Amino acid sequence: MVKGIGAAAGIAIGKAFVLPTWEWDLPDEMIDVTDLAKEFERLYEGIRTSKDEIEYIKKEISDVVGHEESNIFDAHLAILDDPVFMNEIRGIIQRQYKAAEVAVKEVIDKFVNMFDLLDDEYMKERALDIKDVGNRLLKHLIGSPDVTLPSDNQPFILVAKEVSPSQLAHLNPANVLGIATLLGGTTSHSAIMARALGIPLVSGLEGKFVKPVTTGDHLIIDGEEGVVHVNPGAHVIARYTNRKTMAKEAADRLQDLATVPAITSDGFEVQLEANISSLKELEHVLRNGASGVGLFRTELLYMDRTSLPTEEEQFTVYKEVAERMGGNPSIIRTLDIGGDKQLDYFALPEEENPFLGYRAIRICLEETGLFRTQLRAILRASAYGQVKIMYPMISSVEEIREANRILSEVKEELKDASVPFQSDIAVGIMIEVPAAAQIADVLAEEVDFFSIGTNDLVQYVLAVDRMNEKIAHLYEPYHPAVLRLLKFTVESAQRKGIPVGVCGEMAGDIKALPIWLGLGVQELSMSVQSLLKVKDKVLDSSKEECVRLTERLLKCGTSSEMRAVLDQFNSKITVQEGT
Amino acid sequence: MVKGIGAAAGIAIGKAFVLPTWEWDLPDEMIDVTDLAKEFERLYEGIRTSKDEIEYIKKEISDVVGHEESNIFDAHLAILDDPVFMNEIRGIIQRQYKAAEVAVKEVIDKFVNMFDLLDDEYMKERALDIKDVGNRLLKHLIGSPDVTLPSDNQPFILVAKEVSPSQLAHLNPANVLGIATLLGGTTSHSAIMARALGIPLVSGLEGKFVKPVTTGDHLIIDGEEGVVHVNPGAHVIARYTNRKTMAKEAADRLQDLATVPAITSDGFEVQLEANISSLKELEHVLRNGASGVGLFRTELLYMDRTSLPTEEEQFTVYKEVAERMGGNPSIIRTLDIGGDKQLDYFALPEEENPFLGYRAIRICLEETGLFRTQLRAILRASAYGQVKIMYPMISSVEEIREANRILSEVKEELKDASVPFQSDIAVGIMIEVPAAAQIADVLAEEVDFFSIGTNDLVQYVLAVDRMNEKIAHLYEPYHPAVLRLLKFTVESAQRKGIPVGVCGEMAGDIKALPIWLGLGVQELSMSVQSLLKVKDKVLDSSKEECVRLTERLLKCGTSSEMRAVLDQFNSKITVQEGT
Repeated sequence: MVKGIGAAAGIAIGKAFVLPTWEWDLPDEMIDVTDLAKEFERLYEGIRTSKDEIEYIKKEISDVVGHEESNIFDAHLAILDDPVFMNEIRGIIQRQYKAAEVAVKEVIDKFVNMFDLLDDEYMKERALDIKDVGNRLLKHLIGSPDVTLPSDNQPFILVAKEVSPSQLAHLNPANVLGIATLLGGTTSHSAIMARALGIPLVSGLEGKFVKPVTTGDHLIIDGEEGVVHVNPGAHVIARYTNRKTMAKEAADRLQDLATVPAITSDGFEVQLEANISSLKELEHVLRNGASGVGLFRTELLYMDRTSLPTEEEQFTVYKEVAERMGGNPSIIRTLDIGGDKQLDYFALPEEENPFLGYRAIRICLEETGLFRTQLRAILRASAYGQVKIMYPMISSVEEIREANRILSEVKEELKDASVPFQSDIAVGIMIEVPAAAQIADVLAEEVDFFSIGTNDLVQYVLAVDRMNEKIAHLYEPYHPAVLRLLKFTVESAQRKGIPVGVCGEMAGDIKALPIWLGLGVQELSMSVQSLLKVKDKVLDSSKEECVRLTERLLKCGTSSEMRAVLDQFNSKITVQEGT
Repeated sequence: MVKGIGAAAGIAIGKAFVLPTWEWDLPDEMIDVTDLAKEFERLYEGIRTSKDEIEYIKKEISDVVGHEESNIFDAHLAILDDPVFMNEIRGIIQRQYKAAEVAVKEVIDKFVNMFDLLDDEYMKERALDIKDVGNRLLKHLIGSPDVTLPSDNQPFILVAKEVSPSQLAHLNPANVLGIATLLGGTTSHSAIMARALGIPLVSGLEGKFVKPVTTGDHLIIDGEEGVVHVNPGAHVIARYTNRKTMAKEAADRLQDLATVPAITSDGFEVQLEANISSLKELEHVLRNGASGVGLFRTELLYMDRTSLPTEEEQFTVYKEVAERMGGNPSIIRTLDIGGDKQLDYFALPEEENPFLGYRAIRICLEETGLFRTQLRAILRASAYGQVKIMYPMISSVEEIREANRILSEVKEELKDASVPFQSDIAVGIMIEVPAAAQIADVLAEEVDFFSIGTNDLVQYVLAVDRMNEKIAHLYEPYHPAVLRLLKFTVESAQRKGIPVGVCGEMAGDIKALPIWLGLGVQELSMSVQSLLKVKDKVLDSSKEECVRLTERLLKCGTSSEMRAVLDQFNSKITVQEGT
């Protein structure tokens, strides 16, 4: 048994297939080129082919692993567009009269060595990206075959020095039971993809094996514990087989909860809804028994295109959401670009601090044409189901009134044109800017519902960009300031009698659930994967206990106190479960 | 009389001196070069000389206009280091065998035309910078004389198409009564410098004059109204002379207030303190009757150097502040770098959102060596006056405790070494992160005083980077959310009985003063220039009226309501003054 890093959870039991290194050796004798123009043409042709292939993989894979994960390949495309990288290659060809593949190989090696020297996880990951792209380019220049695969088409556990997203993308996921890699960590692109594909992955195994694993070895991968067993004994196999069965049973039991309402032991009902980005996810939403779509992120409709989506294109999508959700509500959030989300065809200004910049409703209130088109599409869809509108990044009453003014103009237009829509469509706002939470009582007078975006709220309240690794440890959702703002927001909504939900990451976090129950939040919207786990915990909870817990938490002055109180509460529940 | 843009306030009356365009004509016959190496050497020599000259000007001018303004010349240095700019020049010499000055002229013209074409104020300003630097370089290549000046060494009003910071820097400010330029606006580098130098400036006059102004014309410049009078009649001169006298008298009257305590008509006393960045400002602090240094920004000690300042260097500065302030307190803020403030020799990570990143206390708690050195220097200075320590960017109790833990270790070291210091030195924090304001009651238990940093607080609460022009209109200090947080912070301090001050820009804003009085803030720290104006208004205010105003403001749900109430209140005061 060897111990590495658990990078994607799950247990895999099967035979090893050791992946040959995906690095192309150059043909033995490369003669210098004489026709530079022709050599450049070869290089450009190779780049074009590589890009097409990456675009194709990206599209293919996005159906399997989701859009966000497939964006990994954008980093690869960016490398092929990077002037520094490409100038180096061109320079070697031009000055040294070397063949394109030799130049590419030299530049890859140079960058990879340079990045590897830096003792920085992020740069090491970038080195892997460059190697991945470079090898793809080499492949097209040399004309080598694709990744070797086991010939018998049997499922296997992949063992490799490191595995690139490209390699993963070329494999049939149904055949990959698990993965063990010598290099890599939990944040690598491959780890993200493995988790999205549901393939157990243990990485960081370099120097851990007594003798190298060879193809055909029996392996057990425990992605939870980060453990790999090589040719284990019968009792180890039995233990893991048992654990696998239990995990399967637990999953089945959870699946049975899909049709059960989420009610605490003392009768408090919570609506568990889904955050989605595309129609593709609707099937999972329904299968996991969501009682609505609490957040439909419309950004994806605007991405991977060359121009804004038309009203008709949007209407088709919103209408399908409305219809397929039947009587259940769907909250459609108006366009939330800016910050870290850009559109290729819609130039946003370069900003020093994009998270504090021109984004979301701020853009919509200036680009009113874009905003009107979306509102028209949403309004028209509202004739086909229970659709609600939600504005993101609201920080003042003025913004709500301005957005609503535009909305009523659009309603008038539709009325004049006799286009059907729900005239009293509910309009709500995201509470994610500290100012909005701070004046939630005032804002409650202006809208039909709130939805708390915990990710941005925490980020702004603490002034911590959670994507910034250097200070990620300061991103602390369990902070007394955050809890006070949450409490005030929820109470403001309750006093005014409007619904308040939560749609940030904390909504799907089992650990945070007692807080939501304690505050009396009646709608939680989360990723589809979390729905049943959260429901399971709701069924096991007592609202009254959660209220008492929240009172105690509100008395804590520090995050460590809060976490201690919360952990104690959650472990008590777990112990009770166990007994 | 012609109307332009008032870019720097004040009135100037005097004779015009029309500045010849600072553009170098190339010698008539430039022969192509044959010795490329020699030509490059000439170019590099010119660049070196230009850089030395800019560095020299920057140093010189910084004593007159202050450090921030002198940084304008960093933009010029950056252009001379810009690889794109320099490659273009080198390319023309190398490929076309042209002389260095011809190449420089061509590249300047190209960039200036390109930037001018873009209909963007910012880019036009950059074009002016390039022209300025390019002309300086040309001057050194061609060997032309410096800017022509009036030969009689008499004061004059400068008239020019446009004026560059370099030109301003070459003039003796004592001789420049005022400036009128055809181009430019309020945000140009020259406007910033003119304001810092106290020289009235009217710009944007292109096409406004009926006939061109010539040297010797009599002019009146009204930088407040943005008006220029050419050869005015006697009554106009009399009116402006009168206004100048009144302005002078008002300034003298204000100066008389320096020694008067700042007490409202109903007996509420406020400590008016100064924000400073260097020892140079101390003289102004004392002359303007500040009752202390409410914020000593220590960043400048760390800037414009190649390594961290030593303990001894810092101690010398802090000690001089302590001694010269006599019995009055000096609050020394520990290093607040990061965000938009970088140190050349201290590589901070590249960040997507530096304002939400690794900065201030977050850096000090990791770079404890740097932090300890500063704390030692401050503690040692505390033996020589009433010194206090202030931590910036605090967002939690944990950070305070960690900083204080390090502080007490440093105190122990000093005690062991028998170095004198004030053992009960007051330790306070900036309240500028929303989380800190939100839990001000908890934080008040941990520290000796608060100082509210309104600039960052407003920025984070509204999620608006105020440096970002695209959304600058959303940066709204008069927002109900901000006022509530301010109120809670002040009340929390008062309940615990610790002092609370304000040191952000709003502290020196006459318009905001009634709010501070209404909340009962007893310390306002501001730029030296604002001290007497604010004191004048304090003397004219009634705390009781301000309390009632603040109660009314707290009932407002929108910024526009708040501004209306505040404007009405402030205009009432002004009317009373007038009667």
